[in-house]
Amino acid sequence: MVKQSDLDKTKILIEALPYIQRFNGNIIVVKYGGSAMKDEELQYHVIEDIVLLKLVGMRPIIVHGGGKEISRWVAKAGIEPHFYNGLRVTDEDTLEIAKMVLGKVNSDLVSMAEAMGANAVGISGIDGGLLTVEKNMPDGKDIGYVGEVSKVNIKVLHDLVSNDFIPVIYPIAADEEGQAYNVNADHVASAVAEAVHADKLAYLSDIRGVYRDPDDPESVISELFADEAAQLIDDGLISGGMVPKVENCLDAVKNGVRRVHILDGRVPHSLLLEIFTNRGVGTAILSDTEERYYQE
Amino acid sequence: MVKQSDLDKTKILIEALPYIQRFNGNIIVVKYGGSAMKDEELQYHVIEDIVLLKLVGMRPIIVHGGGKEISRWVAKAGIEPHFYNGLRVTDEDTLEIAKMVLGKVNSDLVSMAEAMGANAVGISGIDGGLLTVEKNMPDGKDIGYVGEVSKVNIKVLHDLVSNDFIPVIYPIAADEEGQAYNVNADHVASAVAEAVHADKLAYLSDIRGVYRDPDDPESVISELFADEAAQLIDDGLISGGMVPKVENCLDAVKNGVRRVHILDGRVPHSLLLEIFTNRGVGTAILSDTEERYYQE
Amino acid sequence: MVKQSDLDKTKILIEALPYIQRFNGNIIVVKYGGSAMKDEELQYHVIEDIVLLKLVGMRPIIVHGGGKEISRWVAKAGIEPHFYNGLRVTDEDTLEIAKMVLGKVNSDLVSMAEAMGANAVGISGIDGGLLTVEKNMPDGKDIGYVGEVSKVNIKVLHDLVSNDFIPVIYPIAADEEGQAYNVNADHVASAVAEAVHADKLAYLSDIRGVYRDPDDPESVISELFADEAAQLIDDGLISGGMVPKVENCLDAVKNGVRRVHILDGRVPHSLLLEIFTNRGVGTAILSDTEERYYQE
Amino acid sequence: MVKQSDLDKTKILIEALPYIQRFNGNIIVVKYGGSAMKDEELQYHVIEDIVLLKLVGMRPIIVHGGGKEISRWVAKAGIEPHFYNGLRVTDEDTLEIAKMVLGKVNSDLVSMAEAMGANAVGISGIDGGLLTVEKNMPDGKDIGYVGEVSKVNIKVLHDLVSNDFIPVIYPIAADEEGQAYNVNADHVASAVAEAVHADKLAYLSDIRGVYRDPDDPESVISELFADEAAQLIDDGLISGGMVPKVENCLDAVKNGVRRVHILDGRVPHSLLLEIFTNRGVGTAILSDTEERYYQE
Amino acid sequence: MVKQSDLDKTKILIEALPYIQRFNGNIIVVKYGGSAMKDEELQYHVIEDIVLLKLVGMRPIIVHGGGKEISRWVAKAGIEPHFYNGLRVTDEDTLEIAKMVLGKVNSDLVSMAEAMGANAVGISGIDGGLLTVEKNMPDGKDIGYVGEVSKVNIKVLHDLVSNDFIPVIYPIAADEEGQAYNVNADHVASAVAEAVHADKLAYLSDIRGVYRDPDDPESVISELFADEAAQLIDDGLISGGMVPKVENCLDAVKNGVRRVHILDGRVPHSLLLEIFTNRGVGTAILSDTEERYYQE
Amino acid sequence: MVKQSDLDKTKILIEALPYIQRFNGNIIVVKYGGSAMKDEELQYHVIEDIVLLKLVGMRPIIVHGGGKEISRWVAKAGIEPHFYNGLRVTDEDTLEIAKMVLGKVNSDLVSMAEAMGANAVGISGIDGGLLTVEKNMPDGKDIGYVGEVSKVNIKVLHDLVSNDFIPVIYPIAADEEGQAYNVNADHVASAVAEAVHADKLAYLSDIRGVYRDPDDPESVISELFADEAAQLIDDGLISGGMVPKVENCLDAVKNGVRRVHILDGRVPHSLLLEIFTNRGVGTAILSDTEERYYQE
Repeated sequence: MVKQSDLDKTKILIEALPYIQRFNGNIIVVKYGGSAMKDEELQYHVIEDIVLLKLVGMRPIIVHGGGKEISRWVAKAGIEPHFYNGLRVTDEDTLEIAKMVLGKVNSDLVSMAEAMGANAVGISGIDGGLLTVEKNMPDGKDIGYVGEVSKVNIKVLHDLVSNDFIPVIYPIAADEEGQAYNVNADHVASAVAEAVHADKLAYLSDIRGVYRDPDDPESVISELFADEAAQLIDDGLISGGMVPKVENCLDAVKNGVRRVHILDGRVPHSLLLEIFTNRGVGTAILSDTEERYYQE
Repeated sequence: MVKQSDLDKTKILIEALPYIQRFNGNIIVVKYGGSAMKDEELQYHVIEDIVLLKLVGMRPIIVHGGGKEISRWVAKAGIEPHFYNGLRVTDEDTLEIAKMVLGKVNSDLVSMAEAMGANAVGISGIDGGLLTVEKNMPDGKDIGYVGEVSKVNIKVLHDLVSNDFIPVIYPIAADEEGQAYNVNADHVASAVAEAVHADKLAYLSDIRGVYRDPDDPESVISELFADEAAQLIDDGLISGGMVPKVENCLDAVKNGVRRVHILDGRVPHSLLLEIFTNRGVGTAILSDTEERYYQE
Repeated sequence: MVKQSDLDKTKILIEALPYIQRFNGNIIVVKYGGSAMKDEELQYHVIEDIVLLKLVGMRPIIVHGGGKEISRWVAKAGIEPHFYNGLRVTDEDTLEIAKMVLGKVNSDLVSMAEAMGANAVGISGIDGGLLTVEKNMPDGKDIGYVGEVSKVNIKVLHDLVSNDFIPVIYPIAADEEGQAYNVNADHVASAVAEAVHADKLAYLSDIRGVYRDPDDPESVISELFADEAAQLIDDGLISGGMVPKVENCLDAVKNGVRRVHILDGRVPHSLLLEIFTNRGVGTAILSDTEERYYQE
Repeated sequence: MVKQSDLDKTKILIEALPYIQRFNGNIIVVKYGGSAMKDEELQYHVIEDIVLLKLVGMRPIIVHGGGKEISRWVAKAGIEPHFYNGLRVTDEDTLEIAKMVLGKVNSDLVSMAEAMGANAVGISGIDGGLLTVEKNMPDGKDIGYVGEVSKVNIKVLHDLVSNDFIPVIYPIAADEEGQAYNVNADHVASAVAEAVHADKLAYLSDIRGVYRDPDDPESVISELFADEAAQLIDDGLISGGMVPKVENCLDAVKNGVRRVHILDGRVPHSLLLEIFTNRGVGTAILSDTEERYYQE
Repeated sequence: MVKQSDLDKTKILIEALPYIQRFNGNIIVVKYGGSAMKDEELQYHVIEDIVLLKLVGMRPIIVHGGGKEISRWVAKAGIEPHFYNGLRVTDEDTLEIAKMVLGKVNSDLVSMAEAMGANAVGISGIDGGLLTVEKNMPDGKDIGYVGEVSKVNIKVLHDLVSNDFIPVIYPIAADEEGQAYNVNADHVASAVAEAVHADKLAYLSDIRGVYRDPDDPESVISELFADEAAQLIDDGLISGGMVPKVENCLDAVKNGVRRVHILDGRVPHSLLLEIFTNRGVGTAILSDTEERYYQE
Repeated sequence: MVKQSDLDKTKILIEALPYIQRFNGNIIVVKYGGSAMKDEELQYHVIEDIVLLKLVGMRPIIVHGGGKEISRWVAKAGIEPHFYNGLRVTDEDTLEIAKMVLGKVNSDLVSMAEAMGANAVGISGIDGGLLTVEKNMPDGKDIGYVGEVSKVNIKVLHDLVSNDFIPVIYPIAADEEGQAYNVNADHVASAVAEAVHADKLAYLSDIRGVYRDPDDPESVISELFADEAAQLIDDGLISGGMVPKVENCLDAVKNGVRRVHILDGRVPHSLLLEIFTNRGVGTAILSDTEERYYQE
């Protein structure tokens, strides 16, 4: 006799059908970092999710940071860490360490996806001239080898995606003269998402989303139109560290990304929950031409 | 908070990952007929299964018969039905009715798949010259317009499949002179599966599979190598109406189809159960170069 | 010695050269119905013409109705036929019969073309989601499952034509929910011709064309610019059943079809006469940007 | 009313249908020379025939000589013509004249085809390195710049044919060192036909074909299998200037050309007569695997 | 030990790197004529240069005239040469000679390139319908078969270039009726360069460039913006035979060619000097949107 | 006036023509390591050479090691280095450092090539599943995470090369379970060269080639057929550390690489010297079907 658990399984697969259809061919850029990187099991689940999305017809692109690893190695090397406006002040030694650590993390993620049977290729912003950066001088201050994206050349991404690879990007890039820089991974993710006209950009973060009441994690807003979000910032309802994050999302939406998601990377399979249910598991910032989607 | 049912769902989707990967790009020919056609809900589930297989990367081709519909219309027209060796004796009026009924059933199946968002195109063996038949004269007896497949021209199938359509085939075909014939759908399915080098050929039937003990439905054999199956026939352990069915399967396996499945079409989603679990839900006849797969 | 008849033959083939060149690559939609369907020999000649046009480099698409066959089967089934404004009132039983009869006629035409060595594929408006229809409510009256075309998705046509098939279309289509409808074949022909930007749309009809004097069949007008035709309707010179026919042609011309022909389907090879002579054999309605072509 | 002459025309076009179908996509190499070149009207008809064959789906390649033009210009230049074994002894001045005259004739033929609306490109054996030749030393005798084909590089032909051009070839080619040579056009035609695996190679000549009785032009043999032809030579029934001609045909047949035709170039439209009737208008030499075709 | 001369060689090759990169994929039309044609060694060097440009990634197209050869053959034929406004009055005999001589020169250039291992195809304006001309009537005067370009159909050029051939064009073309004409090669070069949107058009001429002081060959101007050049003509500083030459260049620049070069064809390898150094070796006329490039 | 130095330059470029032609489209795998990596200027010249080879039509693939960098970082981390049979004993910490250092070196080489205007993409053996390795147990001894290549999947290389990138490979790869290993770069180079059927494999080493007299660097042998080389090993004339190096070359030649070069990486532009002169600058080991090439 057929087992009940197997019958339940087919039921759930069939329920996935409209979601698979809805997102077939969609490009999704996943920014992966923070806590979700620390826990090996969570890391495994994130890659599983992305490989599954690829197999059911979406076209995922991963952008990742180095999480706590860079700090750990900088400390190991006896370098005193400095930050300015949340950006790591990056001298030559720190840059060298960042390059090495990010390269290694990249290789580990690619290896994990390959072991699951997917085809993945790891690249930095230097490979194929993907990103060109300029020196970032916040408030005119020199904070070393920290760059900001000035140009995206999607040829290498286009070639990898159309040859059925999952590109895995780490945020090192060079300027016009070939000098390498460390770049903020969130910005790389939005720059790439804009350049490839992504349907979705998902940030796996350490928060549950945008809160209506900053003190109440239960007050997560599941969908926000771009202008609503802008209004909430103006009204001071979005504040603190949330402001640059949301502004980054608004930029992406303004530049052609249809939906940007802030997901809780600490929840296992939060990406699948986002794609395969119509109950939001974080906050979606939508272009004003999009339609509300979740049933709250 | 994320619902437990949603978490369970992601777990099941992730469990599907290795199966999706295993069968990615595989061509599966599904012969659909019998009881599974009578029940509207079962019919809906069969099409759902096939559409899902398409979306996760398989390339399904459907072959169907007319089930009880042809008999019903033949009766309506006041024609006395005759059978010889299980083949319907087909005079000109019966052929005309068969063409009309099969065409309508075909259109209904295509319509159902289209309504689920898939792209399907219905064809008979005449379209694109898919099948060429010769008059079937069992034991030299003339049973009218009953043909057997003598040639398969896969161009139209190849074009449809590579343009991302699900071909839905009904078993009417013409001979070299253009005279139409009714053809046995089981044979059409195996002829097509052989011609396209299908990875799988699945018969949705009214039995649970091949029984080790003909009187005990619980004795279904989940996997049989081709030569084991031939031995069982020789030993008289497979007997009666089961013999031609299994011989048809053996032919397909001998001509390059890797696995042929006899599935119970009365179980909802039996196709998904077959693909997404490693517990067989019927009998698989395998080429001798294949490996056993199910965990019994 | 070479026979005189063979020399004459080469002369005629050479005379065809400029016509073949002129129409090379042209898409021609042929609406085939009415009397031309009743006579088996005429039917054979129509398909011969279309196969020849295909072979000399044109890209024909056939749209056909069911002629008198639907009526015959409706009568057989003991259903009382009803018409409203020339449209068949279509209850569920009538729809089922229409689907079956049209499917069979379609299969017969495809079979004929295939027997002549051409590659043809029969489809309805349902296959590949070619047509989406809405319920037709003339004067707000419910006449059953009669639809009118609201959307054309040419993917399936494009794929068939570029793979060198002659598409043969019968006028059954579904609405957004997947409910099937009977559709007027003339409308299907013009909707398809517009969607594929046909160079020519030819109606094989039971009249000799548009008459300057309604009572004098000798007064056929060979070429009419769209605005002349509109004027003739305004002036009452085109009247009766001719009005909707011509208005249908005007719609097609307005939506990008360069020339629409009303040909006498009762004349054998009227399509060839139209293409390979510059003496019109019916009436051509031309876009105002076209040039007169026939030598009267 | 439709004119009788127009109806007759459609009848003839329809009769052409099976021939068009039979030869669709066939590559035909036409060697054009001799008398057919002298008469301007005949010349026009030959090009018309080839353009028509192209339009109905064949893929023609023309090889031509210079006819009497070279002799005329050689005489004009005051050079005494010399021949050895039917080959023109070619000194440097003669070669220069041959190149110029053949180039001009080539340009004229291309111009004629272009004026009929076809796309033609004229090339010599030098263009795209089509032909490599070696110095021809009949019986060890030096007869100057007369070459024989040692290698065919079909890239340029393939590119032209697949881009829908009619290649028009004149028989000048170079050796490995780049020295130009005059080449026998009959040999160029067979070498090219073999290299492109032509379906047909047609020689437009000044005779009616191979005679059974050398003295009786009425005794033309319409079809000869390769081994029959060889036998006729052995038996001395084919003799004189006919021997090298037929041997050339046999070579082509042995190297993969399916049918080689010796046609009477003095009969207008002899190419069309050959293609569009099943009454041979000359002699066909067939591969032993071919079937007889003509109804005598 | 490695030889010093070999080390010097690598140094020069490496110095070529930025130039190769700069011009990679660029289309360059080279008008080749005048003195550079008379000297066999110069001729060889010109073809070498063009073959090298092809091999390092540029896409060259050659247009050539007949140099002194036409005059020599016209004289040989006893025809009195006549010129009007620098254009050769061309009667039927002269046209015939021009066609033959240009065809022969063309064949020789192609042969030379082929012997160097490049793939070249020679065509006239007639092949593939490249050029359509109209009769040129300077000041309303009939000067015979002298045409001017009225239409360019680049299909044949596009096909040859994308199949990796070097097209070699000679300036004979036909009008709409198929009548051949002699055309000025300079005009053909600029018409072709405009039609293919060439990056560069280079005239190999018998002068060192445009002089600032007409009497001082040392006063060559290396770069001239289009409006500067126009001004120099207005100011009378460019005068005499230089005026039509420069006006031709200005036309090309106005119609989309980025840089037009007047190079001294008498200097060996002047094309390479132009491409692989940033010291101009003649005069470049630049579009006003270009930037100055040479270091004087 | 044109400068003499410019004229000399054109002469040298023209001399390069036959070499460019000879190697056009050739795949060359360059193993880059050793001293050539320590000197920044040498490093720059190596990349320049490879970029130039790419631009003139060759298809280079780079494989590199980490040179002294790994040792430096291992020391920095306070790990005692151990070697066995010349292979670095690799514990988990050493592996982590090797991954990081090789990734960084890779990124620096890619960056250098990109800054020169080439398109390069850096990958390890993990990306796209390029290499699968097995644990290397020399003499059955466990030396940690040291792998040897068991499978090469060239898809990612093929995609990069055909999209015009220069692949830059570093020798980290995973086994079937996804465990990473350090791999010998020389072996990676030969495995890759064999898998892509490279025309050339060039090792940039710290020696001048294979010496006929081990003590005399002037006795470099410029060309050695595979069986000669094997004989020299048998005869003890090749000995010591040279043996495994030459055996590696012999393996590559046996597996389809046409020529393997041992070049002196300390000579600037030794790659160009090899390609653009016919005086060998090291030792070439050739397949026995190749022909001697150098003029000694």
